[in-house]
Amino acid sequence: MAKKKIRIDEATVNYLEKPELEHPVLIEGLPGVGNVGKLAAEHLIDEIEATKFADIFSTDFPPQVFVNQEGLIKLVRNELYYWKGDQDLVILTGDYQGLSTRGQYVLTQAVLDVVQEFGARRVYTLGGYGVGMDVEKPTVTGAATHASLVEELQQYGIEFRDRGGGGIVGASGLLLGIGSMRGLEGVCLMGETSGYMVDPNSAREVLKVLTSILNINISFAKLEEKAEEISRIAQHIKQLEKSASGLGDKDTDELSYIG
Amino acid sequence: MAKKKIRIDEATVNYLEKPELEHPVLIEGLPGVGNVGKLAAEHLIDEIEATKFADIFSTDFPPQVFVNQEGLIKLVRNELYYWKGDQDLVILTGDYQGLSTRGQYVLTQAVLDVVQEFGARRVYTLGGYGVGMDVEKPTVTGAATHASLVEELQQYGIEFRDRGGGGIVGASGLLLGIGSMRGLEGVCLMGETSGYMVDPNSAREVLKVLTSILNINISFAKLEEKAEEISRIAQHIKQLEKSASGLGDKDTDELSYIG
Amino acid sequence: MAKKKIRIDEATVNYLEKPELEHPVLIEGLPGVGNVGKLAAEHLIDEIEATKFADIFSTDFPPQVFVNQEGLIKLVRNELYYWKGDQDLVILTGDYQGLSTRGQYVLTQAVLDVVQEFGARRVYTLGGYGVGMDVEKPTVTGAATHASLVEELQQYGIEFRDRGGGGIVGASGLLLGIGSMRGLEGVCLMGETSGYMVDPNSAREVLKVLTSILNINISFAKLEEKAEEISRIAQHIKQLEKSASGLGDKDTDELSYIG
Amino acid sequence: MAKKKIRIDEATVNYLEKPELEHPVLIEGLPGVGNVGKLAAEHLIDEIEATKFADIFSTDFPPQVFVNQEGLIKLVRNELYYWKGDQDLVILTGDYQGLSTRGQYVLTQAVLDVVQEFGARRVYTLGGYGVGMDVEKPTVTGAATHASLVEELQQYGIEFRDRGGGGIVGASGLLLGIGSMRGLEGVCLMGETSGYMVDPNSAREVLKVLTSILNINISFAKLEEKAEEISRIAQHIKQLEKSASGLGDKDTDELSYIG
Repeated sequence: MAKKKIRIDEATVNYLEKPELEHPVLIEGLPGVGNVGKLAAEHLIDEIEATKFADIFSTDFPPQVFVNQEGLIKLVRNELYYWKGDQDLVILTGDYQGLSTRGQYVLTQAVLDVVQEFGARRVYTLGGYGVGMDVEKPTVTGAATHASLVEELQQYGIEFRDRGGGGIVGASGLLLGIGSMRGLEGVCLMGETSGYMVDPNSAREVLKVLTSILNINISFAKLEEKAEEISRIAQHIKQLEKSASGLGDKDTDELSYIG
Repeated sequence: MAKKKIRIDEATVNYLEKPELEHPVLIEGLPGVGNVGKLAAEHLIDEIEATKFADIFSTDFPPQVFVNQEGLIKLVRNELYYWKGDQDLVILTGDYQGLSTRGQYVLTQAVLDVVQEFGARRVYTLGGYGVGMDVEKPTVTGAATHASLVEELQQYGIEFRDRGGGGIVGASGLLLGIGSMRGLEGVCLMGETSGYMVDPNSAREVLKVLTSILNINISFAKLEEKAEEISRIAQHIKQLEKSASGLGDKDTDELSYIG
Repeated sequence: MAKKKIRIDEATVNYLEKPELEHPVLIEGLPGVGNVGKLAAEHLIDEIEATKFADIFSTDFPPQVFVNQEGLIKLVRNELYYWKGDQDLVILTGDYQGLSTRGQYVLTQAVLDVVQEFGARRVYTLGGYGVGMDVEKPTVTGAATHASLVEELQQYGIEFRDRGGGGIVGASGLLLGIGSMRGLEGVCLMGETSGYMVDPNSAREVLKVLTSILNINISFAKLEEKAEEISRIAQHIKQLEKSASGLGDKDTDELSYIG
Repeated sequence: MAKKKIRIDEATVNYLEKPELEHPVLIEGLPGVGNVGKLAAEHLIDEIEATKFADIFSTDFPPQVFVNQEGLIKLVRNELYYWKGDQDLVILTGDYQGLSTRGQYVLTQAVLDVVQEFGARRVYTLGGYGVGMDVEKPTVTGAATHASLVEELQQYGIEFRDRGGGGIVGASGLLLGIGSMRGLEGVCLMGETSGYMVDPNSAREVLKVLTSILNINISFAKLEEKAEEISRIAQHIKQLEKSASGLGDKDTDELSYIG
């Protein structure tokens, strides 16, 4: 009898609309250390009311749907938003990064295909780097594709240097590495973070630098609320640990791992 | 000398016959938590005497054949059955789900290709969700692609809400997630189950809801026999554990893990 | 500047010669439990002086070359031999089975492509199944694609039944499972073995059954020598263990793991 | 709306220039045991001032960029250099070997495609083999594709024999194994090394043999400086261990693992 053969692409970009954009800047904030990049990108999208124009699906994302409070499902994905201003923006965020080495490369190429069709010339990738201890005032470290960018951006208080730890792994690194080979220039902005918890505090510092570069004014109130909530949870856990260990009067500076 | 190059598809659908079906409803029941979906689908196939019309093979299933009591082998596979009635049905069951992330996506697309060729518009996926303890009377939770479906189906005693735990992973989730992007509407019916043993009791509750929606009358006697057998095994194991631990008079509510 | 794109096949068959064969029987003996299949296939090749006619290479074999005593290298591979007689034979052996699930399927299809081009109609796959303890006189269990084969072969002292343990995994299973879908009939002959050591004794029992079916007379002297050598090593290890544990007078029936 | 499908090659060779080379000899030195091959290849490139002419990128390298002291990023890659002399050379080095089995095969084919286009006929692969203890004067072991090469090269003090341990795994093995099937002859030169630390001492011995074969004169001063530095670090660690264990007067011959 008949046979049917099945061939599926590794990644697909589904456009909801094709906006008209002029040399947009790409901003990436996907899940990662402290979720700094994703928190920053989502806050920016909310504050400037960016418009979603495309979904990216991939056989390298987990085979999973999320279920919301109303019992409605949503397939895991990455999402592209745009915003038109003095400087047009395309913002990338999503539920997951690619699960495999190859998936990471495929998804990076997919995103660059989209933004270069709009004439994009510059990329900012946002992330956190873990320092293994509580951070009162997170600094922002940068890594760039070109020396001219380092010069241009040092005025914004970014430290450009190697922080060790194997460079930058994942989308924040690949978008710069492959991007520069495709003619883009770019910077990764990394907020200091403990690495133990999601860190809206670090996300705010990263976003302050980014919006200062882009000359955009936004409120950080919601990120600060989230930061306070996380801080309360962290305090609560510390208290529980002290009670449990009977060492109520001892100071412990490290936060528990939450995820 | 000559070289021969080998290229193999990731999934192949082998048709035994091409039935004439009118907008069939797809019902999925593959191995998973408590084996609830597979037990329900197989019971339905037996009771309504559905006809097998296709096998699905994949390089993402284990490289394995089963051997029966007569020493005959059978390559692992997924299977598609049809049933013609007031509402035509296509039922998917099988030995395994795809082993890899990508395999899950490929197999989901393969199944949707088949049923959409028949004009399918709706999918019911069947599964269990583990609650980590004995369940006397399993409830049935639903997750749907569209709010209109939630409204339509609430009358059948399905709870529509997020039960946590990362949404729905595997074929039961992907058939809805990818299905809705391909124009299908669908619902996942999940029976409460301990997660420690195969659970015909939970499968019966799921199937009661499904057959009520489909307005089909079937007997549940065989599922109930299986449920009693599993219950006897569970009791036996509890007794053995009590003897082994010398705590014959202690109540233990949790079943041992069987698989 | 210029870019060069690289695409490589998952498996390649390199013919050294294209023999003329009439409906050859395929015999498979690759590494596996107790190395029973590989030992049997290699012994058969040596005794009937079969001729190598093709190498199979795959990106699913380890990226490895062996080095011999003269310092010469050889890329890991599978090999196909032929022998012309009353019944033509093609014998498959090699260094490894495919490392991944997909690789197993691809390599099976590659081998079937080759032998079906010669008009092959039947397959014998050779292997061991581990019973977890010393086996004095290994029995041979069979699993077949068709009931008619079970009937035909029971006269050779093969037990046809399920021995549990998840059926047959790997090339010995897939060549039957996929072979039968491609119109071949086949039998897997499995020799009982402890599973702790390579087992020439079990290989001899399997090969006795196979050569009896094929009506070929060969000597088993070299397999018996190997069996005696392994037996001596096993005895030596037992002695060492007794000394080490100070329990010189205690009987231990299980062999140590050697691999 | 529109869909965009993404397809990406597993490996890409980016030429910076296309040099004119006459039957160049390929020399490979990638990361491996004791980093012997990479140290040797990089030292050779520096001393003869070879010119980089191509980058190799692959979806089988980690999705990673390195960051230098100036905060500039570089995508991980392999690199090809050429040098024109009595005997033209192409030298392969890089940040990583392919991460997966398949990636190793794909990258090997990519490199052979490049050098065979230039008419290459011979390959030298450089590596270390670990002996698990300190090595005062590392010997150099060879493995070759052809017996004639063994004869030709024994005058250079290379021991040709199997050193056990599963042959040669990775690029140093595959370039010979696949190379010989593609008509090349080749030798792997392996320097003895503890396997506990990077070993410039072993790299120097390998490079002495290679440059003697190629009749090239270079200085080894920089490798010797590195060797002394590593030796100082090793001594320092031994001292720390002695202090820590309070066994200051005990001799320990084995170095600590550094990587």
